[in-house]
Amino acid sequence: MTDADRREIEDVLVDYCRMLDRMDLEGLSRLFTADCEVIFGPDPRLCASGRDDLRRSMERMWRWQRTAHHLSNVRVWPEGADTARVESCVHAWHEAPNGTTAEVFGIYCDRLVRAHGNWRIARREMAMNGSQGAFRVQIPQAERAAPPQGWLPPEGLDG
Amino acid sequence: MTDADRREIEDVLVDYCRMLDRMDLEGLSRLFTADCEVIFGPDPRLCASGRDDLRRSMERMWRWQRTAHHLSNVRVWPEGADTARVESCVHAWHEAPNGTTAEVFGIYCDRLVRAHGNWRIARREMAMNGSQGAFRVQIPQAERAAPPQGWLPPEGLDG
Amino acid sequence: MTDADRREIEDVLVDYCRMLDRMDLEGLSRLFTADCEVIFGPDPRLCASGRDDLRRSMERMWRWQRTAHHLSNVRVWPEGADTARVESCVHAWHEAPNGTTAEVFGIYCDRLVRAHGNWRIARREMAMNGSQGAFRVQIPQAERAAPPQGWLPPEGLDG
Repeated sequence: MTDADRREIEDVLVDYCRMLDRMDLEGLSRLFTADCEVIFGPDPRLCASGRDDLRRSMERMWRWQRTAHHLSNVRVWPEGADTARVESCVHAWHEAPNGTTAEVFGIYCDRLVRAHGNWRIARREMAMNGSQGAFRVQIPQAERAAPPQGWLPPEGLDG
Repeated sequence: MTDADRREIEDVLVDYCRMLDRMDLEGLSRLFTADCEVIFGPDPRLCASGRDDLRRSMERMWRWQRTAHHLSNVRVWPEGADTARVESCVHAWHEAPNGTTAEVFGIYCDRLVRAHGNWRIARREMAMNGSQGAFRVQIPQAERAAPPQGWLPPEGLDG
Repeated sequence: MTDADRREIEDVLVDYCRMLDRMDLEGLSRLFTADCEVIFGPDPRLCASGRDDLRRSMERMWRWQRTAHHLSNVRVWPEGADTARVESCVHAWHEAPNGTTAEVFGIYCDRLVRAHGNWRIARREMAMNGSQGAFRVQIPQAERAAPPQGWLPPEGLDG
């Protein structure tokens, strides 16, 4: 995998955010393979099989008045020349029609493949470290190790 | 355009954020061309023509006690060897002297040029997806497609 | 310093965030040199000398129920082939067991070295531009230039 491949992969992830915030669902769906699998949570309405299904299911984002998806922490693990496992974080801000806001600190767990010369998302599964504000969608919590038995928090550190 | 060019362009955008947060306006203005055009919004006080004008107009940021500008979603489209169109997102946090905070989810739409061997911002126009908290400055909303006629939000998705 | 070095350095910084959010302290500590110096603030409990000390001291993060550390604004200044000064920003979100949240807009000031073929953090000192919510830990404020004497804020800019 070349440096150019890594850049193209990152561009695909960024374009997803850009197209989602402007609700260009036609452009967004073309970032995925025709037979992609997308799983944002256990609710069937948060899942999509294939590009056309994804484009339709993402219409749900119109229930927000505005969104902003800011990507960070991109990590690429090549699996051969034409496949990569990719993990990234997203700070997703949402504004409801009544003006209240909600923020998600999400994680995209992706598999990308080179298809017809372009990197495309073949599989996306979402998790999150948490959220704040008026967000209720059931996105699964990412794994986090628990403290060892008997661990006690330090006193007075948060003054 | 080489990979080194792309890195230098991204460094310029990051340095803008770093210098703005420490209010190094002399350093910040040197990231722009001498004849730059900068437009943060329709209010004439949010616009600047040329590097010296920009340095003076950015003094307005001192009305905040502290700021943090975190850049993401950088996309570079080369236009020949010495010019590039660049789009990026910024999560801009502001703290007023009274302790209240305001956040902007902004978009920088830039043109960069290679001038005297260094990449510089020749034109910057700002838009935003939204804001929260005590932010009132008139930055234009970015474009976002409206739902098709008759579109209805899914029921019960938000718990 | 090659482009591959820069990428490996950025991967180390991102892995720190990923491992901290999942509380993989064993993995996290291996991103540092055996004799690392880490200083998050003046409180001795926010400092660590050496990898083992760091792993123990980072257990304090379990007092939060969840965290999300999103990295941005990475700048790398090579100092020879095997050392680099690196600065980056972090948007660190914390959720307390009672559900209240706290956000830090932090700055990591690092020195990385190539040790046994891998880039590792030899020294990390943290500062911040600010915080919001229920955050009380004494992380030092980053430097910011003060306005010139007699500077007056523009009127009416904030509506």
